[in-house]
Amino acid sequence: MNTKSVSELLEQDVTLQQVSVKGWVRTFRANRFIALNDGSTINNIQCVVDFENFDEALLKRITTGAAIHIEGELVESQGKGQNVEIVVSSIEVLGDSDPETYPIQPKKHTFEFLRENAHLRTRTNTFSAVMRIKSTLSFAVHKYFTENGFYNMHTPMITGSDAEGAGEMFRITTLDAKNPPLDENGDVDFKQDFFGKEANLTVSGQLEAETYAMSLGKVYTFGPTFRAENSNTSRHLAEFWMIEPEVAFMDLAGNMDLAEDFIKSVISYVLEHNQEDLKFLDERLFNEEKSKPQTERSEMRLIEKLKFVTDNNFKRVSYTEAIDILRNSKPNKKKKFKYLINEWGADLQSEHERFLVEKHFKCPVILFDYPANIKAFYMRLNDDEKTVRAMDVLFPGIGEIIGGSQREERLDVLKQKMAALDIPEEELWWYLDLRKYGTAVHSGFGLGFERLVMFATGMSNIRDVIPYPRTPQNAEF
Amino acid sequence: MNTKSVSELLEQDVTLQQVSVKGWVRTFRANRFIALNDGSTINNIQCVVDFENFDEALLKRITTGAAIHIEGELVESQGKGQNVEIVVSSIEVLGDSDPETYPIQPKKHTFEFLRENAHLRTRTNTFSAVMRIKSTLSFAVHKYFTENGFYNMHTPMITGSDAEGAGEMFRITTLDAKNPPLDENGDVDFKQDFFGKEANLTVSGQLEAETYAMSLGKVYTFGPTFRAENSNTSRHLAEFWMIEPEVAFMDLAGNMDLAEDFIKSVISYVLEHNQEDLKFLDERLFNEEKSKPQTERSEMRLIEKLKFVTDNNFKRVSYTEAIDILRNSKPNKKKKFKYLINEWGADLQSEHERFLVEKHFKCPVILFDYPANIKAFYMRLNDDEKTVRAMDVLFPGIGEIIGGSQREERLDVLKQKMAALDIPEEELWWYLDLRKYGTAVHSGFGLGFERLVMFATGMSNIRDVIPYPRTPQNAEF
Repeated sequence: MNTKSVSELLEQDVTLQQVSVKGWVRTFRANRFIALNDGSTINNIQCVVDFENFDEALLKRITTGAAIHIEGELVESQGKGQNVEIVVSSIEVLGDSDPETYPIQPKKHTFEFLRENAHLRTRTNTFSAVMRIKSTLSFAVHKYFTENGFYNMHTPMITGSDAEGAGEMFRITTLDAKNPPLDENGDVDFKQDFFGKEANLTVSGQLEAETYAMSLGKVYTFGPTFRAENSNTSRHLAEFWMIEPEVAFMDLAGNMDLAEDFIKSVISYVLEHNQEDLKFLDERLFNEEKSKPQTERSEMRLIEKLKFVTDNNFKRVSYTEAIDILRNSKPNKKKKFKYLINEWGADLQSEHERFLVEKHFKCPVILFDYPANIKAFYMRLNDDEKTVRAMDVLFPGIGEIIGGSQREERLDVLKQKMAALDIPEEELWWYLDLRKYGTAVHSGFGLGFERLVMFATGMSNIRDVIPYPRTPQNAEF
Repeated sequence: MNTKSVSELLEQDVTLQQVSVKGWVRTFRANRFIALNDGSTINNIQCVVDFENFDEALLKRITTGAAIHIEGELVESQGKGQNVEIVVSSIEVLGDSDPETYPIQPKKHTFEFLRENAHLRTRTNTFSAVMRIKSTLSFAVHKYFTENGFYNMHTPMITGSDAEGAGEMFRITTLDAKNPPLDENGDVDFKQDFFGKEANLTVSGQLEAETYAMSLGKVYTFGPTFRAENSNTSRHLAEFWMIEPEVAFMDLAGNMDLAEDFIKSVISYVLEHNQEDLKFLDERLFNEEKSKPQTERSEMRLIEKLKFVTDNNFKRVSYTEAIDILRNSKPNKKKKFKYLINEWGADLQSEHERFLVEKHFKCPVILFDYPANIKAFYMRLNDDEKTVRAMDVLFPGIGEIIGGSQREERLDVLKQKMAALDIPEEELWWYLDLRKYGTAVHSGFGLGFERLVMFATGMSNIRDVIPYPRTPQNAEF
């Protein structure tokens, strides 16, 4: 008999057939009802055991977490909560699970406890739902870009350049840690290291993606990036995945259109394909927030919030307009902001972004045309020579989810900006070549994938949306 | 007027319309015919210029590599090689390309030269075709697994464990390179390093993928992996991408079925979606091989070889059978093998694998049930206690393209094997937990993505199927 998955069985409309299924026991009630799950769906299949027909020693091994093989007849369910159930004819225990020591018991565990048992936490409803949704989102990303004429490319993890400037980097090496070889000046001789020079883990694939955009037209990367920053927050990881599209002949307005269309598309895809997982997480969040004071609860439930994003236009606001709004805002006047906004040129903090999104506009916001001196060297200088064609997409509850820009395509301007920041031209000769040979307007953005997953699942700690989070002092598993 | 891509224009069947297109000049013949490409297809669109209507100074700037914006009328082409062409009404040069210095001239460049100009090499037909096919293959991978009920997961790049044993690792660190902090024994104090212990770049996501298979059922990873091995060959990279599915309740026979079905599916997908790119590469390889002596030429052309894989069953052969075949083979008897096969237990070298695939069976081969002592600790020991449930898929021209196994699911056997290899249990406590709590038969494999791309494109050096190859002494770009 062919073994079927739980999701296949729950979708069967032909009952009274013999079936075979393998999975892990979630609960075993009254020596009679096994709730069996195999990860294919958030739902369990109920397996009804006539305990008088089974050996007592066998039944004792049906414990939470045990792997079992069930055969029996698929019938219409008498109980509520499911359409079908299995009347069990045979049970084989594949792997026991000692109830005295198995950590994932059928009760509420804290997320902190589950992080310590990250290798087992996808055996819970919450984490299996999160990871199924994450997988759907990942596929939606590839599908969106593929259907829109983009080519996927693999930008390198290991980089010999440290000019990207997006953050602190990890060094990678095969030199002896204690006694590295030294050169004649007494400095570490990186010529003897694996790559013949100092090498680091990338903070972004953007610069390399630009090279491919300037030949293949529309490209995207989707891979790991790294930050060696000592940030122990619920929004930062040392290793996370980034989605970075880059498009030739596209300006900042096109970039905003792309960002908005992209996010709406992938969220729609999840709304369509993960209804049961979302329903579970929606309930979970709603119940969790019941214990909070009214003022700290979300104004919208999870699914409502996702639909709000897909159904509404993102508000596009220039940095200059945003500063005006913030300067005249209540929290600024009443000195409730930690960083008060006094003048044009101030860098916006998370509190300001959240005010704009959650209190003022009450919808996703795209801020654009930022002051040049608070943004990266590669961003296109506007004719005012004060602002650059940068954009940030801000989301409720998350803050910045996308950062992007039109890139500086003029060789002379780019060289001036690099010189002002002491970035040697030899480091980025190939990047400058793009401006020497057939340069053109082009734009792109970066989206931190885990932040998108947080938004789509309602999880509030980024450590809970990646299988094995890497953070300061932590590389367990 | 909406700007269209070259591929969109070439597919138009409505002519006599005004069109706008942007791209890079490939050639400009007779002051009249611009071949324009924007990366959307291997084909150029021909733009016909009536030079008497344009300024001579402007026409001089139409050089290979220049970015231009063309407007004009799309008409049926008079020449051969294309259905439509553009009668140009306006030309705007977006970015010049100095013909004296631009490296990618319309002539044959060696692959070595193009590797030094990797940031521009996708402006050639060969590399743009390779990268478009690679992108299609990547999508085909995600599509195959998604449609077959697998969940994508992101296994970590950074690992605190060095027990995976698949190869030499890179250390990642933020400690001072010259004067690292020392502990009381005078050793480097990795407690002060970013992760609080020594950390490395992963060689495989398998062990972590097993944790998710044992909860979500069917999962796969598709991400970078690393080897700090000093191998300067045409088949090895220090950084490459690996596809690793892992499935609960699946044995070695199921694993072989999955591997074969998977490869056939993704290659069929490319045959269907990249016909023009494949046709170009097929011609390229055929012409390249003309200069070789008959005996060194491929027996099949590229497309023929891909169809051969999708249309034929892979031959499944046990290691023991393979040893018999090799022992009695001509090259063994005539001592033509570098490593002669004398007895059962010998590790197979590339020359043996190629003999089996290319000379003996003349089709892809799956070897299985290898001697335990030449394979990894986590592979399922057979009842003979001499062999393990390992499999390697061998491809013509490539050799090993997939390595996989059924995993040892028995706690006591796994512990014994780890002890024999001095792998401390504390290092892999979470991996052992999978065998303590609801263990079950499970299997998976790893496929080096760049080797698949080599096979699908006919490229013979792995450095030519990844944008920016990382190899010993080389992390340029």
